[in-house]
Amino acid sequence: MIGGGKDAFIGAVHRLAMNMDGQVELVAGALSINPDIAVESGKMLFLDEDRIYTDYKVLLEKEAAMPADKRIDFVSIVTPNFVHFPPAMMALEKGFNVVIEKPITFTLDEAKQLKVKLEETGLSLLLCHTYTGYPMVKQAKQLVKSGALGNIRKVYVEYPQGWLSTFLEKTGQAQASWRTDPKKSGKAGCMGDIGTHAFNLAEYVTGLQVTELCSNINIVVEGRMLDDDGAAFLKFDNGATGVLMATQIAAGEENNVKIRVYGEKGGIEWKHEDANTLLVKWLDKPTEIYRTGGGYNSSFAAHNTRTPAGHPEGFLEAFGNLYRNFALTVRAKIDGEQPKDEWLDFPGVEEGVRGMAFVENVIESGKSDVKWKEFIV
Amino acid sequence: MIGGGKDAFIGAVHRLAMNMDGQVELVAGALSINPDIAVESGKMLFLDEDRIYTDYKVLLEKEAAMPADKRIDFVSIVTPNFVHFPPAMMALEKGFNVVIEKPITFTLDEAKQLKVKLEETGLSLLLCHTYTGYPMVKQAKQLVKSGALGNIRKVYVEYPQGWLSTFLEKTGQAQASWRTDPKKSGKAGCMGDIGTHAFNLAEYVTGLQVTELCSNINIVVEGRMLDDDGAAFLKFDNGATGVLMATQIAAGEENNVKIRVYGEKGGIEWKHEDANTLLVKWLDKPTEIYRTGGGYNSSFAAHNTRTPAGHPEGFLEAFGNLYRNFALTVRAKIDGEQPKDEWLDFPGVEEGVRGMAFVENVIESGKSDVKWKEFIV
Amino acid sequence: MIGGGKDAFIGAVHRLAMNMDGQVELVAGALSINPDIAVESGKMLFLDEDRIYTDYKVLLEKEAAMPADKRIDFVSIVTPNFVHFPPAMMALEKGFNVVIEKPITFTLDEAKQLKVKLEETGLSLLLCHTYTGYPMVKQAKQLVKSGALGNIRKVYVEYPQGWLSTFLEKTGQAQASWRTDPKKSGKAGCMGDIGTHAFNLAEYVTGLQVTELCSNINIVVEGRMLDDDGAAFLKFDNGATGVLMATQIAAGEENNVKIRVYGEKGGIEWKHEDANTLLVKWLDKPTEIYRTGGGYNSSFAAHNTRTPAGHPEGFLEAFGNLYRNFALTVRAKIDGEQPKDEWLDFPGVEEGVRGMAFVENVIESGKSDVKWKEFIV
Amino acid sequence: MIGGGKDAFIGAVHRLAMNMDGQVELVAGALSINPDIAVESGKMLFLDEDRIYTDYKVLLEKEAAMPADKRIDFVSIVTPNFVHFPPAMMALEKGFNVVIEKPITFTLDEAKQLKVKLEETGLSLLLCHTYTGYPMVKQAKQLVKSGALGNIRKVYVEYPQGWLSTFLEKTGQAQASWRTDPKKSGKAGCMGDIGTHAFNLAEYVTGLQVTELCSNINIVVEGRMLDDDGAAFLKFDNGATGVLMATQIAAGEENNVKIRVYGEKGGIEWKHEDANTLLVKWLDKPTEIYRTGGGYNSSFAAHNTRTPAGHPEGFLEAFGNLYRNFALTVRAKIDGEQPKDEWLDFPGVEEGVRGMAFVENVIESGKSDVKWKEFIV
Repeated sequence: MIGGGKDAFIGAVHRLAMNMDGQVELVAGALSINPDIAVESGKMLFLDEDRIYTDYKVLLEKEAAMPADKRIDFVSIVTPNFVHFPPAMMALEKGFNVVIEKPITFTLDEAKQLKVKLEETGLSLLLCHTYTGYPMVKQAKQLVKSGALGNIRKVYVEYPQGWLSTFLEKTGQAQASWRTDPKKSGKAGCMGDIGTHAFNLAEYVTGLQVTELCSNINIVVEGRMLDDDGAAFLKFDNGATGVLMATQIAAGEENNVKIRVYGEKGGIEWKHEDANTLLVKWLDKPTEIYRTGGGYNSSFAAHNTRTPAGHPEGFLEAFGNLYRNFALTVRAKIDGEQPKDEWLDFPGVEEGVRGMAFVENVIESGKSDVKWKEFIV
Repeated sequence: MIGGGKDAFIGAVHRLAMNMDGQVELVAGALSINPDIAVESGKMLFLDEDRIYTDYKVLLEKEAAMPADKRIDFVSIVTPNFVHFPPAMMALEKGFNVVIEKPITFTLDEAKQLKVKLEETGLSLLLCHTYTGYPMVKQAKQLVKSGALGNIRKVYVEYPQGWLSTFLEKTGQAQASWRTDPKKSGKAGCMGDIGTHAFNLAEYVTGLQVTELCSNINIVVEGRMLDDDGAAFLKFDNGATGVLMATQIAAGEENNVKIRVYGEKGGIEWKHEDANTLLVKWLDKPTEIYRTGGGYNSSFAAHNTRTPAGHPEGFLEAFGNLYRNFALTVRAKIDGEQPKDEWLDFPGVEEGVRGMAFVENVIESGKSDVKWKEFIV
Repeated sequence: MIGGGKDAFIGAVHRLAMNMDGQVELVAGALSINPDIAVESGKMLFLDEDRIYTDYKVLLEKEAAMPADKRIDFVSIVTPNFVHFPPAMMALEKGFNVVIEKPITFTLDEAKQLKVKLEETGLSLLLCHTYTGYPMVKQAKQLVKSGALGNIRKVYVEYPQGWLSTFLEKTGQAQASWRTDPKKSGKAGCMGDIGTHAFNLAEYVTGLQVTELCSNINIVVEGRMLDDDGAAFLKFDNGATGVLMATQIAAGEENNVKIRVYGEKGGIEWKHEDANTLLVKWLDKPTEIYRTGGGYNSSFAAHNTRTPAGHPEGFLEAFGNLYRNFALTVRAKIDGEQPKDEWLDFPGVEEGVRGMAFVENVIESGKSDVKWKEFIV
Repeated sequence: MIGGGKDAFIGAVHRLAMNMDGQVELVAGALSINPDIAVESGKMLFLDEDRIYTDYKVLLEKEAAMPADKRIDFVSIVTPNFVHFPPAMMALEKGFNVVIEKPITFTLDEAKQLKVKLEETGLSLLLCHTYTGYPMVKQAKQLVKSGALGNIRKVYVEYPQGWLSTFLEKTGQAQASWRTDPKKSGKAGCMGDIGTHAFNLAEYVTGLQVTELCSNINIVVEGRMLDDDGAAFLKFDNGATGVLMATQIAAGEENNVKIRVYGEKGGIEWKHEDANTLLVKWLDKPTEIYRTGGGYNSSFAAHNTRTPAGHPEGFLEAFGNLYRNFALTVRAKIDGEQPKDEWLDFPGVEEGVRGMAFVENVIESGKSDVKWKEFIV
């Protein structure tokens, strides 16, 4: 693991997700750029002392030099955005598979370079768009794919948060500080941090791709350096339209990501607040409540479910599903076997490239007086 | 009543709303342009035969000629949009107060003419934006007005319907036929029919006014003559922004109008599906559930509540509140008394003018390649 | 109307319910035992002065003496429980149909006398178990009746309120005072006031009858004279069992009556808080959300629905449904026509007798050390 | 781990819960009484071959013989009920701490023996009443304890399931087979399996103890050997009363455990379906929505929360909390430190004894014609 020292939020989440299924063991780490914290954090995690590194380059060098049965199988990169690309590229060059937090890189160009490198090496990359790990999101995708809703016409996707309602970065809060800093976060704040999740969710569930967009991007809290609020109209490649909303200044909101998709015959609605429920609406019959664990679900939902219906599966399980599917795929490839379709259903570099393109296009559109902007990758 | 013969949807709703509080009695009607239906409908409603008219002009003429204690106090116009203005203007000229369905007129210019006439005559006009009649919508407005949420920053308002998901007007269904016909409905379909409700709700609850907008207007169902789907970014006069969504092709949706407003300190959420609940969210304390009938509500909510907490008040009660407040105001004015603030809190010609301006601006923006359009009244 | 002077809660509700559909006109009243209030209330309701009475006996005498086309068609009795029977019996003797608040009488014996008299006279009686007027409660009954759920096995019905959490009657509050007074309310407080609603709802929806019960009856608030809390195990005539809970000391609760019924193949759930929704659960497929106004509903639900799906119908509409069905039935009988099955689906004297039997049996069981008590009518 | 071979439900859940926080490592197992399955399961879990046992006695003997720094710290017993006591007692005798599935033993007497042994040895025991591991259940307990609700008056607790709606054991389904078999499950079916959860939840949240009960116990599905449905009236040691409902034949229900507790000033409501929400109701102000991760929560809720507000924590996290608190306590005791109050807040032998007493009392009451039965431990 690179990054994710003690007190880092997302590193801890990654470790919980890894541990969950007993398929993955954390054995080495360069957990902080601060050597003292790196060492202290490594000890807290029971790492062998000789595999606690203070520099990710050293980690990758030394692990690569170990025998195949001892060295790491993949590396998880959970650093701020501006430190995604260098360790990811180096890891691929050293022959390691990669898990990386979203957004995949600092710039679109870096994402494309990773894509090329992955094609060259045949290695795997997991990009942590966690929401696509929920069984009911997978069920939504399969329902759309099955054609049950007819041709898709309209998509609403939203991600309201309230945690940046105040000028939090001024207080020195670590999360707020780097996420609102263009040098560390990139061109976008809100749009990069949660807008990319909404965008990914829309494309994942519908199986469609955005071709044009028109955005309104705002900095609401005075003094902030990056956008903390925005919305975009979307056009998809089948002619459907959509609205995407993401904000970090919706005071009182938690992380209630929500998607609604409507086709000719019906629609689906999923929201994070009630993550084990999928509403399926029909033109002329009662709305149905699909639930995690229901015997009527697709193999994709079932494969990503751990407990019987009625036992809520949460965010960590969704995250764990990403790791589990990635691990199953990596192991199958190592073993020379063909991974199952259900295992391969995790976000990767293609989603990363499109996510970075979203960031670039949505920010550019926000600055433009022209309404529609072609979605350029 | 003008319009609203047997089988007309909204005329029946008006009569239910009128009846509710026993404050209003229907005594005369020109209920259809078809004389047979007009007569038959009048008889079904137990009208005196000499006050069943087959022409609204005759109705207004004859009623105006009656003695003051016998003639109607006001006229309700529940005809399709293109027959709003002529009877409304004539009624005002004859000295009658007016209740009118939204949108107020066929064109913005007509709405402005009504406004001038109302100022000249001192008469009253009720425009049926029903959602503002719900106690919890009134409570939301009062909470915003009190400053409890701080300065308002973001507004999301939406009105998803599914009833026009198919090419229903082709089947001859009466509602669908006139509402999708530009000769009867006006410049807009979806935006006029339900977009105006969403727009009005946003301005009503926030007390703010839209100054600019950027819209995406669509005809989704092939063959349809007017928009059946759309969305708009909004800018408000205090600098807040918003997103408005209205669609009639969200297959499986009923009439789940919803508004969310966020200020510096908290936010509110109200949705039609759970109309007696208002969620009040806070930056740093638990969300509160305000309920119709709660002893903690404002006088505006309390005045518009008929039953103790826990007895759901529905759409007809909200509609009845509009009629009751209008009737209380008209009677007070007849009696030379000052209506209470709570009574005066009903939508009127000002909302009608702004609603028509919304229709014109949102449709024009939809056709434009330039992103933002000034909201011109 | 007998009782229901100004400030009386339920009288006002009755008038709203009557008015709703324009089928019923209030023309005469003995609205209070206090003559001044009776007169003042009558004037407020625009009654003709010669039909404002100060004594129900005089009302019934004088109205009975009027010509058939002028006198009242039925009388609504909205007095406290101990003044239900005398005016009801006298009204029937005078040939008037009767609307009466629940519980139908002060004692079971009185209820039986009314039943005999109704059989003798062929007149109609409406007992105001309002919850059975909701479209989705009617739909629940029809679903059970259709056999879709299979044989019924389990019933949970509950009515939690919080308004008597304090010793409210001590403050002189009118409602609390008579409802907790055994001389005015009868043998039971909570069980009579809301327990009877829960009991009626269970028998109505399932179409079954209780044959045995075992109760726990409590006075929770010190100083109170009647039960304010209780629960009962139920046995039904098909072998199913149930649990009934009713309380008035659930601090913070409104009137969230709820019923769940489970058969071999599925179950239904309805709650007052979300009255336009009926959940239909299945052993092996997704739960379905039935909604008021849905095209898939039975004729019984449809007949009791006024507005299209998505426009919430509330308590007053449910109450209005009782009045409307009663009025339709009375008119049909006057006209010598056969009322439709949908019209006849309102609670009457049979439900009244069983409700009074519930009061007597549940209170007696509460005092007994023996577990099960036969349900004796 | 004893029991929990491949395909066993609850063993897998235990392993997920153990893994979650990286505090516990599974190193040895006697995973099945079938030696082949024991070995195969051990290999699937990457156990060292010499610590894969085919007999729990051998496991306990051999592990006890290992040096202190190598042998297991505690043993998890996840066998059917009738194989709880022997390994638990032997483990305690060998000096191992114990984790055990509920109900703790086959008989009340066995539970009492474990209690004595635990007092003698000073070892720790975790009993897996998972619902008490949810942050919002802990918050509910703390709210009651704080006195904010006033004296507690009423408790409703329910656990409806539908999975035994059919004669599932006849099909040979493993779970159904042993859970409905009195030789393996004990005196009770439904009441032991889920009734004990409901009972424990009521005592945990209120801090009160049941002193008397009156039950109705049923076998609904023909041919079944143990109860699959039941309810009980409860009396608590402070004078409060309650109703407990548990059923396995509520067709269409999942595992929606729910508890409501009412005091003089307010009440709380928690349900498994929405496990990260706690409703707090008040006599005279809006209901509050407490949420997992809210900054206003008690230290007990906060300690058991892994992710920021808005990231749903599910059943496995609740289960993980039990394991984590147990592990923290065991380690502190090993290290000679005083465990924190938040760590000690896990169910143990006392809850086990009361749970077994519940089983015995509720079944005995079910057979009795006398209404109330003293709750004898």
